[in-house]
Amino acid sequence: MAKNAFYAQSGGVTAVINASACGVIQTARKHKDKIGNVLAGRNGIIGALVEDLIDTSAESDDDIAALRHTPAGAFGSCRYKLKSLEANQAEYERLIEIFKAHNIGYFFYNGGGDSADTCYKVSQLSEKLGYPVQAIHVPKTIDNDLPMTDNCPGFGSVAKYIATSTLEASLDVRSMSKTSTKVFVIEVMGRHAGWIAAAGALVADHGIPVITLFPEIEFDQEKFLAAVKANVDRYDYCTIVVSEGCHWPDGKFLAEQGSRDAFGHAQLGGAAPVVANIVKQALGYKFHWAVADYLQRSARHIASRSDVEQAYALGQSAVQLALAGHNSVMPTVVRKSSRPYRWEIGHVSLAEVANVEKFMPRDFITADGFSITAPCKEYLYPLIEGEDYPPFENGLPKYVTLAGKSVPKRLPEFVLKKG
Amino acid sequence: MAKNAFYAQSGGVTAVINASACGVIQTARKHKDKIGNVLAGRNGIIGALVEDLIDTSAESDDDIAALRHTPAGAFGSCRYKLKSLEANQAEYERLIEIFKAHNIGYFFYNGGGDSADTCYKVSQLSEKLGYPVQAIHVPKTIDNDLPMTDNCPGFGSVAKYIATSTLEASLDVRSMSKTSTKVFVIEVMGRHAGWIAAAGALVADHGIPVITLFPEIEFDQEKFLAAVKANVDRYDYCTIVVSEGCHWPDGKFLAEQGSRDAFGHAQLGGAAPVVANIVKQALGYKFHWAVADYLQRSARHIASRSDVEQAYALGQSAVQLALAGHNSVMPTVVRKSSRPYRWEIGHVSLAEVANVEKFMPRDFITADGFSITAPCKEYLYPLIEGEDYPPFENGLPKYVTLAGKSVPKRLPEFVLKKG
Repeated sequence: MAKNAFYAQSGGVTAVINASACGVIQTARKHKDKIGNVLAGRNGIIGALVEDLIDTSAESDDDIAALRHTPAGAFGSCRYKLKSLEANQAEYERLIEIFKAHNIGYFFYNGGGDSADTCYKVSQLSEKLGYPVQAIHVPKTIDNDLPMTDNCPGFGSVAKYIATSTLEASLDVRSMSKTSTKVFVIEVMGRHAGWIAAAGALVADHGIPVITLFPEIEFDQEKFLAAVKANVDRYDYCTIVVSEGCHWPDGKFLAEQGSRDAFGHAQLGGAAPVVANIVKQALGYKFHWAVADYLQRSARHIASRSDVEQAYALGQSAVQLALAGHNSVMPTVVRKSSRPYRWEIGHVSLAEVANVEKFMPRDFITADGFSITAPCKEYLYPLIEGEDYPPFENGLPKYVTLAGKSVPKRLPEFVLKKG
Repeated sequence: MAKNAFYAQSGGVTAVINASACGVIQTARKHKDKIGNVLAGRNGIIGALVEDLIDTSAESDDDIAALRHTPAGAFGSCRYKLKSLEANQAEYERLIEIFKAHNIGYFFYNGGGDSADTCYKVSQLSEKLGYPVQAIHVPKTIDNDLPMTDNCPGFGSVAKYIATSTLEASLDVRSMSKTSTKVFVIEVMGRHAGWIAAAGALVADHGIPVITLFPEIEFDQEKFLAAVKANVDRYDYCTIVVSEGCHWPDGKFLAEQGSRDAFGHAQLGGAAPVVANIVKQALGYKFHWAVADYLQRSARHIASRSDVEQAYALGQSAVQLALAGHNSVMPTVVRKSSRPYRWEIGHVSLAEVANVEKFMPRDFITADGFSITAPCKEYLYPLIEGEDYPPFENGLPKYVTLAGKSVPKRLPEFVLKKG
């Protein structure tokens, strides 16, 4: 009897992670002789541990196809990092038991760096325990920090959203600057790497005076204020893109400025209002600020076509790699050319991926630390290329919610350790 | 010699105000026998007062056509309210002088309630001073608070953006709620009227548990927390749409909670973080929040097609009304049917429009104050109907920046009174 496959989504979701799920399931459905059914973890790997599995064969072809244009995690995701084998072997053993009980021979794990590591360990342990499972990692992260791949699915769409939104809001400020707002601050995600902030900096190519604050560059208040003033003196307005990871020389995040509400409670989050207030105090400019937060990573309505295509292709390739006998690998995007953008799918061993983070190269940021260089632009533009609009109905995108039929349990209960 | 027309944009800009400008200019260009040239005020009415006029005849037909898909104010706008005739007749007289000096016989003023009032006064005074000008007001405001028109251009596109973004972010939270974020708060514009917040409430039709906080309803913390808890108990997550105008029973805005930064300065703005922290303190749920700010009113990439069509039609109609001899009027949208949405352009006397604000009817909000009723939905859905994507180039929308050629000055300098 053909083995089943297990598929789970891990960590923060994206506008295109379901496109990868679509690639996995549609490809598996074409090979029923080899892959009996795709069982999905409800809420990610937790679904495997507690045996809460979704029977994807109960979903119609149309609904699976609609995953391609539906943002967020259709099966639920989770922030739950499996500990090291030494610290908690019971969880890994439980996974293998679940795989045995449900005749699972393929493990497709769709996530970022942590899940690549988990995937790697599962493949190692399954062999050791005598129940070999082919473990394939499907890359996904808006942070764009996985190594060995040209980029990570989810990033291109965030980048397109941030660049578009920054451009639009900048035109708004430009219109109003004579008598009203002169400084607009937009806060973007990226606690460790400035890839998303870099996308905001692209609006300079549209004539917008923009200053970008990266997590890679220590915040220099004096230099920053001088740059803002120079822009306002010259253009009458200035746009500021600040990464949530922007920090003071002592390592403290700007967002942790120590703001207190009326009750004296620490106010969480918000590098943008902090930056706006620094400008207001020093230079007196009227400001507005925005924090896009989840809007940016779920904005499927303005997804990048290259991103959607790659997310799908990586899911598809994961299944093809499994069918070709590969184990402990991750399919990757290999860039063949930037102009025009040409890419193909490759793959690397998970041993090379696990626990490696990819940061912005220093030469992608200008010497003054406030902008991006030509090589950075050459890297970014292909990733935001093309549109891929979802269908709309009654004025809103028509996203799918799956039936999510449960697979009957076969094993005793398992209690999760508290994180 | 055919009279020239003056056109200016007033107040906060929108995703579609340039579509109205496009309607005005394209229609004027078809009637060169009657309208010599359209002179636009640079930065709104200030451009008229200081004689900073833009010669739109220097803009190509293609660039004028591109206004239809370009957000914000292509000629610049301003927040500058002309005082009453008694308080500052000099400014009105200056306008008439400018009109005389540049042979202007038509005054097209594109804005909200304040500009409707200015437009009305200009038409009255010009007659009194013996230089009659036909003054036509072109409605525009994301606040949707002008009377006598089915809706105001700019609102439908904000509504579509907020409903779409709230839906997308809610799917994100739903994916993550098992182990992470349970409450997502999105802050929307609307200091006095809850029209934009109401658009966020539409996501209830997509199965999202959503609580909406309107400026029309006093904030009741206890009732609010009970509603959030009920949603999280039942659905494991909850979306909250909060209007920037949401306020305590004593009238104080939630956004003015008295947050202080590390320097002890009052932190400006942000009802969303205040609401998120109230939930966190009382119920302990992990939260995320977003403040869309200018992103929402400039989001031309997700504009509503009905909104774009109406914005254009109102600009076009303003010129047609002028050519038909009307004065002191505003073209309006008249709804003939909601399903399917059928509308036509009418017009009303400015005397009926000036200084009247349209609020949400109480029966558009549910009895508990947290949601919208069926009549409200029937009103809203047509306004977000249809998409009207801008062209894209290199991954970003291709918006136009006009040449903005200045008209030579003919009058002595005029010094603006300080607001």
